[in-house]
Parts: sequence; structure tokens; C-alpha cells
Amino acid sequence: MADYKAPLRDMRFVLNEVFEAEKLWASLAGTKETVDVETAEAILEEAGKIASTLLDPINRSGDEEGCHFDDGVVTTPKGFPEAYRTFIEGGWCGLGGNPELGGMGMPKMIGAQVEEMVQSANISFGLYPMLTAGAALAINAHATDELKEKYLPNMYSGVWAGAMDLTEPHSGTDLGIIKTKAVPNDDGSYTVTGTKIFITGGDHDLSDNVIHLVLAKLPDAPAGPRGISLFLVPKILVNEDGSLADRNNVSVGSIEHKMGIKASATCVMNFDGAQGWLVGELNKGLACMFTMMNYERLAVGIQGLSASERSYQNAVEYANDRIQGRAATGPANPDKAADPIIVHPDVRRMLLTIKAYNEGGRAFSSYVARWLDIAKFSDNTEEKAHADAMVALLTPVVKAFLTDRGLESCVMGQQVFGGHGFIREWGQEQLVRDVRIAQIYEGTNGIQALDLMGRKVVANNGKFYELFAKEVTEFVEANSANAALTEFTAPLAKAIERLSDVTEHVIKASAQSPEEIGAASVDYLDLFGFTAFTYMWAKMAKVALENVEGDTEGFYATKIKTARFFVNRLLPKSLALAEAIKTGSADMMALSAEEF
Amino acid sequence: MADYKAPLRDMRFVLNEVFEAEKLWASLAGTKETVDVETAEAILEEAGKIASTLLDPINRSGDEEGCHFDDGVVTTPKGFPEAYRTFIEGGWCGLGGNPELGGMGMPKMIGAQVEEMVQSANISFGLYPMLTAGAALAINAHATDELKEKYLPNMYSGVWAGAMDLTEPHSGTDLGIIKTKAVPNDDGSYTVTGTKIFITGGDHDLSDNVIHLVLAKLPDAPAGPRGISLFLVPKILVNEDGSLADRNNVSVGSIEHKMGIKASATCVMNFDGAQGWLVGELNKGLACMFTMMNYERLAVGIQGLSASERSYQNAVEYANDRIQGRAATGPANPDKAADPIIVHPDVRRMLLTIKAYNEGGRAFSSYVARWLDIAKFSDNTEEKAHADAMVALLTPVVKAFLTDRGLESCVMGQQVFGGHGFIREWGQEQLVRDVRIAQIYEGTNGIQALDLMGRKVVANNGKFYELFAKEVTEFVEANSANAALTEFTAPLAKAIERLSDVTEHVIKASAQSPEEIGAASVDYLDLFGFTAFTYMWAKMAKVALENVEGDTEGFYATKIKTARFFVNRLLPKSLALAEAIKTGSADMMALSAEEF
Repeated sequence: MADYKAPLRDMRFVLNEVFEAEKLWASLAGTKETVDVETAEAILEEAGKIASTLLDPINRSGDEEGCHFDDGVVTTPKGFPEAYRTFIEGGWCGLGGNPELGGMGMPKMIGAQVEEMVQSANISFGLYPMLTAGAALAINAHATDELKEKYLPNMYSGVWAGAMDLTEPHSGTDLGIIKTKAVPNDDGSYTVTGTKIFITGGDHDLSDNVIHLVLAKLPDAPAGPRGISLFLVPKILVNEDGSLADRNNVSVGSIEHKMGIKASATCVMNFDGAQGWLVGELNKGLACMFTMMNYERLAVGIQGLSASERSYQNAVEYANDRIQGRAATGPANPDKAADPIIVHPDVRRMLLTIKAYNEGGRAFSSYVARWLDIAKFSDNTEEKAHADAMVALLTPVVKAFLTDRGLESCVMGQQVFGGHGFIREWGQEQLVRDVRIAQIYEGTNGIQALDLMGRKVVANNGKFYELFAKEVTEFVEANSANAALTEFTAPLAKAIERLSDVTEHVIKASAQSPEEIGAASVDYLDLFGFTAFTYMWAKMAKVALENVEGDTEGFYATKIKTARFFVNRLLPKSLALAEAIKTGSADMMALSAEEF
Repeated sequence: MADYKAPLRDMRFVLNEVFEAEKLWASLAGTKETVDVETAEAILEEAGKIASTLLDPINRSGDEEGCHFDDGVVTTPKGFPEAYRTFIEGGWCGLGGNPELGGMGMPKMIGAQVEEMVQSANISFGLYPMLTAGAALAINAHATDELKEKYLPNMYSGVWAGAMDLTEPHSGTDLGIIKTKAVPNDDGSYTVTGTKIFITGGDHDLSDNVIHLVLAKLPDAPAGPRGISLFLVPKILVNEDGSLADRNNVSVGSIEHKMGIKASATCVMNFDGAQGWLVGELNKGLACMFTMMNYERLAVGIQGLSASERSYQNAVEYANDRIQGRAATGPANPDKAADPIIVHPDVRRMLLTIKAYNEGGRAFSSYVARWLDIAKFSDNTEEKAHADAMVALLTPVVKAFLTDRGLESCVMGQQVFGGHGFIREWGQEQLVRDVRIAQIYEGTNGIQALDLMGRKVVANNGKFYELFAKEVTEFVEANSANAALTEFTAPLAKAIERLSDVTEHVIKASAQSPEEIGAASVDYLDLFGFTAFTYMWAKMAKVALENVEGDTEGFYATKIKTARFFVNRLLPKSLALAEAIKTGSADMMALSAEEF
């Protein structure tokens, strides 16, 4: 397997050239004093080093060894605790955290790229700080000052970790039916009892404490999702002075044996009358989770990109090294027995597909991160509202589309390896096993698609969608005089028209039958993703065209070629998706349950 | 995980109703005396039992335990040797074998369905007899009578197993550069020396002997593929009287640790001056392999179908059991906390996609098997030549298209399971890991696509393709008066027109640039597959429409609904494929190797 090389050149291109981050940061109340390009680039460079030298070397060994569960105690694979100590010493757990409580306050545009590198090197490892950051985000947004001051500094430093406890054996997607109970105590705390499953980082030996955010219901809570509250439940109780007290009644029932991310501990957590504290308002627990979820879902989307980038680097190295067969146009390597397989068009098709997805995905994840940053750091109400709408619309797309492309790219990269791709030793098959979970957790991709189609598009009659369509259309119009860009803006104009047409179609159809939403949703999200990527590629091509002349490095010329491959070869998938969506729900609802 | 239930009803439908096997068998010289529907159905029923009761129960345990390699000796997981003994006692290894030497002489149309059931229950197990059958086929077709009489009876009985030794560390797809040497001995045998990798069933504890078919080169052989010969090299030498003699110089270097099919021993084989015997003519080894490969490639395609069928059965059971959320049109299950997830359109979309692929794939694999049977059992030269052409054309399609759909269906079934799909205990993730290899071995799917596009279509200027197109067009025309069938024949007519158009386009384009073949190939094979499946679905719908009235079982009504889902929802993919193919090779050849 190739050593991981952080794609810093492309990251700078996206950050500085495509999205002009410096201009953005200077314009936002919350970043203008604190963030600049030099800081950003220094952070990214350092993160690239951490990824390559600290996390990459324990990726495969972590997979082979997996986590252990012995006598109630979870231990991570060899090398993980040491790497974690170095990682937290670098302050990485607090990168996006509240600066008043020890966080670094960096925007998500930087955080997203850091996450990409960390997860490219080691998805299992990356999950521990990802969960901590997510839990800290929810605490920072919704908990009392007392809780924030007591818990956040140690979470930002990474000395304590975080976990999100939502799922129960009978309740995953449908959180309205959870059974975990919280009973109020006289001192304002609650006694939490119940079992949670699939808890990532639910326990481990990396940190001194694990701070659980647990969804539970009060005995008299309303039925369904409106009766869910959120509680902070530490594994070890914390004294007034911040020192660790007694163990809380929180224990690990077992850890799961999984297809992949084997070095990430996935726990069954038992809360047997554990002491917890309310976060946010009673019965508003789901809303509190959703603040955090936009960030988490972007981070999971980025896992897809991360694995895909890794797959690309591996497959390119193999395609250059492996000699087999001859180029169709005659030997490229006449003194050797065969040519490197990168001469073959079909191998190039696979590599270019992955490359186009990765660079499109890197731009798209930064674009979504940019909207998250505007929503968080702007002091302009209108601008914030616009950003909130874009975040709401695009979050399910970035989560599902990037992770679906992630699996596709890892499988395709494995295909480049031929038989060696199936052998553990080569490391490529681990990527396939690891990335697969990203399509499932944090809301399956089917749920993301329902969220997009139902709540984010149909429910507001396309209001959020119109913001996106307007932005794209304005981009096309603003560049109508740019003849060199037409090969990208013309397909983009068609793509957004197609998506708008389908959007209108589904909104209308679903007024007649609510089943139209679920019948369209997954294909619609895919269609949205291909359209959004086309927008990203047109934006990137614009910058590349402006800079290609005199570029001795060749970066911009390659960018233009990749853009061309995307719009010509990959965008046609949108034709099929639009056609399929329009056939509606009738065929799939025609069968009774027994006919399956 | 659901217990495996053999889809016997659908198999009978395909065999008897869609392809009227009895009529076919009665018409062929080689089957008219020996095969009838009663025998076929008895065999299929028994195979279904073997699959469910013997092979299914050791599938997951086999995956968990894997094969062992200790001190040069390979052992299979617990229960495998016992199950193998029962399996061979049933005579299953000789099902398609030469009846003069102990085989049962059954047609591949039966064998294909048996293979489907065996592999649905346990892909790892199924590989052992599959490899034996393949090796026996090559020996029967090309070896001397002496070799045939010495080896085949024990291979048909399964007392000895077979293995195919092609790949070397530096030589997989490109067999022309193999290094294994064969030096003639005075007694007519050869001394074989070299190392082979990825040898499925290269050694194990199931049988008393392993008969290797090894590709090697004589010292003075021509360079490249025209200098390859095929040798029979037994693990243990065999005396004149058929008893076992000394161990040959054949040893196992190691076994591979793989992503899946862990209970199938994948060996590094060392031949250190092993004694072997020529099979077929000198330097014609590849041609001898190809006789067998059409059968093996169909069998591997069927592995995709097998896993997909299993995925379907599991996912349907889960979708009926798991309650989560409410139907869009109101509670279906008002006295419970939630509805079974099979009420949700998106879950139905996934299940119906898998179902449509499976039933299409079952028909298509039987269709290809039918051509193999005509080629083998007919005594009419013209009919044989036609069948040979169809086999040549369709083999790469059935291998690649069914295995690609296999992965897609296993991933989709896993998605139905949500988080449980990622947990080993549930068994669904094993399917994904097991089926993945089928896209890689026996010639990667990329190689299948090149074989189809280059050798089977472009090289003969579309001659074989025309046979297929003519058959489909004739079917459409013959049914033009069937108004009820129009919803299937109209899309079929369009699909075959589209495929013919693309075929012509690529033939022309490749005359200008040979790279057009590789640029089109994978998408072309996919387009071919969707078209062939549409043909299968139209044929099945025709029979179903003829029988739907008065069918109390509901089989035919469901068949028609599934056909409708296929043509409406899945066939649109062909639009995108045709469009993508036409963009040609320029974009993918534009990058230098360094630009990747």
C-alpha cells in the first residue's frame, strides 16, 4: 500500500483559489480577528504530517488486531494510546472548539480538510476525536455554563473523550420509540437507565473519562420524538474542582465484531441508574442533537472522500508499478516484458473516475463547510439565515453522496489491484470494509435522502432548493461571456435545469401521494450530488482556466482535463436518474409484503 | 440471517416454462436419451436440500474460522471435511461429467441451477467442487485417453479434487509472461518447476489427492501466449493401477489472508521439479483452458447471482421483522410502536432492485447454459456453430454483469439492515466480502469487458453480436400483436436499437483508434447486460401473462410486477451508459501517467 501523501496542493487550491477563504474570513465577525491564510496553511501542513507519520502507520495493524473487550474493559489496538497522546498534545481535539473554554475556534473549512487527512490515514482512529468534537459541540451549544466549564476544557484537550448514545436495540432510525429512562433527582441531576447499542467510542483506553450524551425520556414525557431529552452522563463522575470522582453506573456490555473500522470500539452501553445532567431543554433533545449532526454528517461524508483519496493514491501507485499487457497503440515500455497497466484506457477510466470524485468531493465538502462557517461566524441575520438554509439542504447530500462515491471508489481502486486487491496484506480491501460503515451510520444514506427530499425540499415547497438553483444559475449567467468555460457551464446549465424540473415534478407528485417522496429520494439525492459536483467542477475549471497559462507545475492543466472527464463521462448518469425518478412509486408499491 | 430457501419454483419456471427445457433436451442428440424433466426436478430438489441442510449451516462458522496452514499442511474449517464427504457421496462432483468415466452427463442448464443453490448456501465450499469440475472438463476435452481414465473417475466421484494453476506473482491477466518451466522427460512426462499464486483449492484436507492443471512453458517455447502449454500435475503421484504412490514435488508455500471466501483455501503453490503430463497439444495450453473457462466463467457469474439471492432472502426477512417508523400513508401496524420497514418505498426500491436482478440473472444464466448445452450436445454443425458463437459472446457478459449486480445487491441488502448489516453476527456483511472476489477472479470484470468488446464484438465486426440482435428483434416482431406485452417489448425494442447503435459506433471508432475499445468496454458490457436482462424479462413476462389468469398462487402476477419495475426503474441506466460510451477515449488518454 502506498504511503499516504496529504493532498495539500489541492486543498490550498480549494481553500484559497476556488473559495477565497481569506476574503470570507475577513468578512465574518467571528473570524476576522482570529483566522488568516498563514495560520490555515500551517495547520493543514501539520495535520498532513500527523496523518502520514502518526496515524497511517497504525492503520493496518489496528485493523488486524482490532479492539479488545475483557472483563468489562475496552482496549484499543497496539500503538493507539501512544498515538492518541501525541495527537491530543497537538491540540487537534479542540480545533473547532470554543476559544473561551480552551478550543482553537478554527472554522470548519479548515477542520474539514484536517478531518479528510486524519481519516485518509486511519478512519478508526479518526472516529475517537470526531465523536469528542461532536459531543463538545452539542454541550457548547446547549448545556448550562456550569456544565460547559466543567467538561469542555478537558474535552477540547482530549484528556476526556465524548460519545453520542442514541441507538437502542429496537430503535435506530426511529428514535421516537427509545426506552431509556431519565428520572429527576432532588439535586437537579437525573438518574438514567437503559441500554444503548452501536456506541462509537463508547469506552476505550485512550482518555481518562468518556462523556456520554444520552437520549432518554422522562417517565411522563410525551410519546414519540417530542418526548426525548438529552443528558450528559460521564463514565466517571467529576468533582466540583474538576478532579475525577467515583465511577458512574455506566458499563460496557460488549463490543461489536464488525466488517470494518475494527480499531474503533463500537460498544453496547448499559446505564444502570447512572447520574446525568440535562443538556438543553426538556423534551428538546432531538433538536440539540441536530445542531451537532450537521457537523457530524459533514465529517462522515468526508470519511467517504478520505477513503476514496486513499484508494486513489494506492491504485495510482499500483497502476504505475504493475506491468501487464501492452498498450493498444504499441509497447510503451519496449525493454520490459510488459507495460505498466496505467497505459490501458479502462484502468485510466477507473483512476479518473476516482480522481474526479475526490477533487469534486473536496470542493463540495469545503463548500458545505463554508456555509457552516457563515452560519456560525456571521453577525448578519439575513446572511446567517441563508447559510442555515444551505446547510440544511446540503448536509444530507454531502453525507450520502460522498460516502456512496467513497465505496464506489474503494471498490474501483480494489479492481485496479486485481487479485491483490482482495488480499489483506495489500491494505486495499481494508478501505472497502472501513468506508462501508459511512453509508450506514449517522443516519443511513436512505435516511439522508428522505431528509433531503421530504424535509428539506418538499416540506418547504422547494424554498431552500431555490437558493441553490439561483446561485448556480447566477454562476452560469455571470460566466456566459467566458467562451473557454462553456464546455463546463453548458452542461451545468442543463444539469440544474434537469434537477429543477425533477424537483418540481416530485413536489407536485407528492402532493397527490406521500409515497412519492420515498420513491424518489435516493435517486434524487444522487442527481443532486452529480449536479452539485458539476457546479464545483465548473467553479474549479474557471479558476484553472485563469491560471493555466504559464503554469509550469501543470496543476491547472490537469484540473481542466479532469473537469472534462467529469462532465463528459460521469455526468451522463444524471440522465438515468431523472428518468428513473419520474416513474414514481406505483411499481414499488404494487407488491404486497407477501409478494417479496 | 434467514435460513436459505432454494428458489425452486422460480427455477422450474425458468427451466420448463421460459426455456422449455424438455423440448430442447428431446431435440439434442446428446440429451434425448438421458435427460428429462422428472430427473431434472429431482436433482434440483435434492440440491436445494443439500444447500439448506448441509452447506448453509457451516457458512458463517467457516468464515469465522477460515482455513489453516500449518507445517505445509492446509486444513479447512470445522465441518467442511464431513460436509464434503456427504456432498461427494451424492455424486454432485460428477453432475456434468462424462458418463463413460463415471460422470452423470447432465446438461449445464441443470448444473447452473445446482451451482446457484450450492453457492447461495456457501460460496467457499462451492469453490472446491467447482474447481474440480472445471479441471475435469479440461482433462476430458483435451487429455489422452490414458490420462482421462486414470484421473477422471476419481475426480467425478470427488475422491480427488482439481485445481487450476495459472497466475504467477508477476503474471495474472498477462499469461504470456509466465515463468513456470516444463522440461520433457524420456518417459513422455515433464518436469515442472515454478511458483503459482492465488490457487483456489490448491491444497486442502477434503480429498485424497489434488490434480493440478498447470500452465507452463517449454524451454524452447515461443515467447508470449503462443508458447504456453498445459500440464496435469497431481499432488500425489498415481500408480498404474490407480492407487496412490509417492508425493509429487508439489508443495504449498502459504495460504492467503483475504477479505472474504475465507473457508476457501487460496494457495501459493510451489512446483519444484514436479512430474507432470501434457494435456492437449504443446503450446496450445491457453486454448485448452478456454474450453473450460466458458463453464467456469458462467459458474463465477452464478456466484454473483447466488450471493444476491441470499442477500434478498435475508433482507426481505429483516424488512418484514424490523419495525421502525410509520408508513407514509398512515400506520400499517397501529397496535405496535412502529411499522415493518417493508412499508417504506425506499426499502421496497432496494428489495425490488435485488429481486429484479436475481430473477433476470437466473433466466440469463440459464439462457447462457442453454447455449453451452446446444454447443455440446447438438449433432447439427450449423446449430453448434451458432451456439458456440452465442457462448463466446455471452460468457463475458454473464460473468461480469452478474457479479457486478451481485456486489450491488449484497451492498443494497446490507443497507436494508442498517447498522446490523455491518455486524458480523448477522451474516449479511459476509456476503459482501465473499461476493467481491467474483468480480476479480477468473479474469477481472474489466478483462471480461475487453474480451467482449474487443474479441467478441469488434474483432469479428459484430458478427456474433448480430446473432443476438437478430434473435431479440425476432422476438419483438413475433410478439408485435401481443398488446399486453407491449409495455415490455417496446422498451426492449428501444434497448436493442440503442445497443446496436452503440455497437456500430464503437466498431467504427475503434478502426480509427484501438483505444476506443478499452474506453468503451466496461460501460458497453453493462449496457449489454441491461439489454439482455430486458430480453429475459420480456420473455418471462410473456409466459407470465399467458398464465396469470386463474393463478391462485400469485406467482405470475408478481412476475409481471417485477418485470415492470425492471423496465421502468432500472433499464433507464442504459441511457447513461450509451451517452458515456460515445464520449470515447480522448478524455481518459489526455493525461500523462504523471498527471494522475
